[in-house]
Amino acid sequence: MYTLREPIKISEAIERVMSFSKEGGEEWVDLAEAEGRYLARNVTADHPVPPFDRSPLDGFAVRSEDTKLASADNPVFLKVVETVGAGHVSTETLRPGEAVRVMTGTIMPENCDAVVMFELTEEIEENELEWIKITRPFKAGDYVSKQGEETKEGDIVINKGACITSGVIAVLATFGYDKVPVTKRPVIGIYATGTELLEVSEPLQPGKIRNSNAYMVISQIRQAGGEPVYFGKLKDDFNLCYQAVEEALDKVDALITTGGVSVGDFDFLPEIYKKLGAQLLFNKIAMRPGSVTTVAEKQGKLLFGLSGNPSACFVGFELYARPWIRKWLRSPKPYLQTVKGRLTVDFPKANPFTRFIRSKVAFEKGRVIAEPIGMDKSQVVTSLAYADALVAVPGGTRGYEAGDDVDILMLMTEGSSMPLRDPEKQRK
Amino acid sequence: MYTLREPIKISEAIERVMSFSKEGGEEWVDLAEAEGRYLARNVTADHPVPPFDRSPLDGFAVRSEDTKLASADNPVFLKVVETVGAGHVSTETLRPGEAVRVMTGTIMPENCDAVVMFELTEEIEENELEWIKITRPFKAGDYVSKQGEETKEGDIVINKGACITSGVIAVLATFGYDKVPVTKRPVIGIYATGTELLEVSEPLQPGKIRNSNAYMVISQIRQAGGEPVYFGKLKDDFNLCYQAVEEALDKVDALITTGGVSVGDFDFLPEIYKKLGAQLLFNKIAMRPGSVTTVAEKQGKLLFGLSGNPSACFVGFELYARPWIRKWLRSPKPYLQTVKGRLTVDFPKANPFTRFIRSKVAFEKGRVIAEPIGMDKSQVVTSLAYADALVAVPGGTRGYEAGDDVDILMLMTEGSSMPLRDPEKQRK
Repeated sequence: MYTLREPIKISEAIERVMSFSKEGGEEWVDLAEAEGRYLARNVTADHPVPPFDRSPLDGFAVRSEDTKLASADNPVFLKVVETVGAGHVSTETLRPGEAVRVMTGTIMPENCDAVVMFELTEEIEENELEWIKITRPFKAGDYVSKQGEETKEGDIVINKGACITSGVIAVLATFGYDKVPVTKRPVIGIYATGTELLEVSEPLQPGKIRNSNAYMVISQIRQAGGEPVYFGKLKDDFNLCYQAVEEALDKVDALITTGGVSVGDFDFLPEIYKKLGAQLLFNKIAMRPGSVTTVAEKQGKLLFGLSGNPSACFVGFELYARPWIRKWLRSPKPYLQTVKGRLTVDFPKANPFTRFIRSKVAFEKGRVIAEPIGMDKSQVVTSLAYADALVAVPGGTRGYEAGDDVDILMLMTEGSSMPLRDPEKQRK
Repeated sequence: MYTLREPIKISEAIERVMSFSKEGGEEWVDLAEAEGRYLARNVTADHPVPPFDRSPLDGFAVRSEDTKLASADNPVFLKVVETVGAGHVSTETLRPGEAVRVMTGTIMPENCDAVVMFELTEEIEENELEWIKITRPFKAGDYVSKQGEETKEGDIVINKGACITSGVIAVLATFGYDKVPVTKRPVIGIYATGTELLEVSEPLQPGKIRNSNAYMVISQIRQAGGEPVYFGKLKDDFNLCYQAVEEALDKVDALITTGGVSVGDFDFLPEIYKKLGAQLLFNKIAMRPGSVTTVAEKQGKLLFGLSGNPSACFVGFELYARPWIRKWLRSPKPYLQTVKGRLTVDFPKANPFTRFIRSKVAFEKGRVIAEPIGMDKSQVVTSLAYADALVAVPGGTRGYEAGDDVDILMLMTEGSSMPLRDPEKQRK
């Protein structure tokens, strides 16, 4: 009935999960649909930047040698022979004593090698001819953006695995990627298990709770970059659950269940994994919440058995499922980023297991601080809503004090290339 | 032709924009569609949490008084009269000497007031009857989660204006919000102006560049929480642009244009705002890039004239359009969050205007550091892709050195309730 389980280290659990990591296939999507996807290939420049010598400002393109002797006492007057807007190309080849009025971004007219900004000239109209007065010399190249000075043709400008943000979209557009090579999202199935689960729309009944984990996990999968497929909820019935899990596994790249992994009589997932012939990676981790998080593997597909407790479910997903999804998407930073920071409150009670406390990150005079919000019972519900980090309080024989340094796992940053290490006790 | 513009402070520009802030209307969406939206109302608990006294673990519900004298030398034996799974309700009313096997989450059976976890009991089967052996006393309330100890019915559990994250979704589901009250997204129109603009799919031509700003801004609007409507790109033709802007304004809550706000001959936006009868809020800000960012207002609708330069366009959006959108969504933290951090490189050159350098935030031994990536010309293109912050280098007569403290504007965090102050010079 009650089976003793051997807890493994957090880092070991992550390593076992990641030993089954894979990379997804590639597909091309419209630029307008690419936001939030992950690049499957390096992005290269299809042209130099700037693509041609151009004016970086509004002014006059000139031949620098014409200005060589210009000074306040000895101004030089140049005749303005043309006005060229950005996107247009000058038709003139400049002769000595001439200038072309150019706008920001204009390709440099033939024979010109410097730009004089409007603010440094005086414009004079005489006999329907336009002149500019220049009172200082300019050197060849002054205020000219040279072809390729930012990027050479063929340069890698963004590496594969990058998440497609607003800024990445700008770069993709610049280099003509109207179709973008992205990694196909891993399809992650979800089953919520437990006879106690009601639909969200149902009124509360004695002994029952509403199914919140499934919707939370759907959202976590999307945030991680996966494609969630929700199969529904399952009553605590072994055969029903076994069949559902077996059938679902054919349709997904990985399957997440919530609930049914503890030591209760109706916690069937461990037995289901066994009957499936799946290889158990672990069924106990030295952490709280989520110590019963259970992961198994069958034919290269992972079965994540997350706890039915909402906080444990949340933490289990972020620590184990998220990096697996990010790796599938070729992210070079699949792991949660760990940052050192200072605790704002005491944790007087020692605990043999590392605890992850839902927290809000703040900054104070250049320092990272962590404000736990998942400590008091009265905060359990709302702490899930407001947490943007997990504070890792290492297991051990002593408690922690406000001001101590701790590891803060950042939930909202891009991530890290380094797998989480088991947090270790340290004092300021 | 060249008109002198009076630069105003950044904080003043933000204040002028925000003086025209509005809050959007409300709509109800399915929980499954609510991710990333903003709550239009406070979320309240429709039931206490826990909804009933319940067992937080797998074990045996007992009458504590039966265990009063239990010890290793004097064990107490209780008869297990029923097994109750989560979601089920016990049918028994316990008599002295009896216990009920309960699973995590089970409602406490009548007459029971403590839970003994599996690990602290020994189970004994005798004559097809099941007994448990208890070797220590338990107090009333031991290992019982009391009704309402986390949340009382009617409590506000999430405040309006919160962005709907995975954790918020869990809370919404818990309290039966299968439909969620969210703020309608502001509809933000976009026109990219400039004869030099090519479609992303077009091959490059002399003097032309691809239209990257529009796609970037569409994504920025989405990230801010708005609904982008892209109207296309416009050639530098006054009448064409005027008509397009006038017609677009009827269809949107705010209109963003890119390009056409500088002092070039074809920078028509200022004249268009004038002809529209729009009130000019400002046309020059003491900042780089983006000093020509121009904002006008007509009948309560804002016209954001962003620069055509990609970096300036990006910064102009984040500083001025984003907080306006977030305020519309009732966010209590509409402004970019400013964090003090340490520079990693020198900025030897002084500049009269505050400069915003696209940067990557990192953390080192609990300290925030900013690694500028938008300084060198060779990084201009990719800096947009990788920036997750803007370092504010205050204008002034001196440069900056590595190790100096600067303001870091965080692009990826939730935001701040405090408007940006004008960065001021400071040394470590």
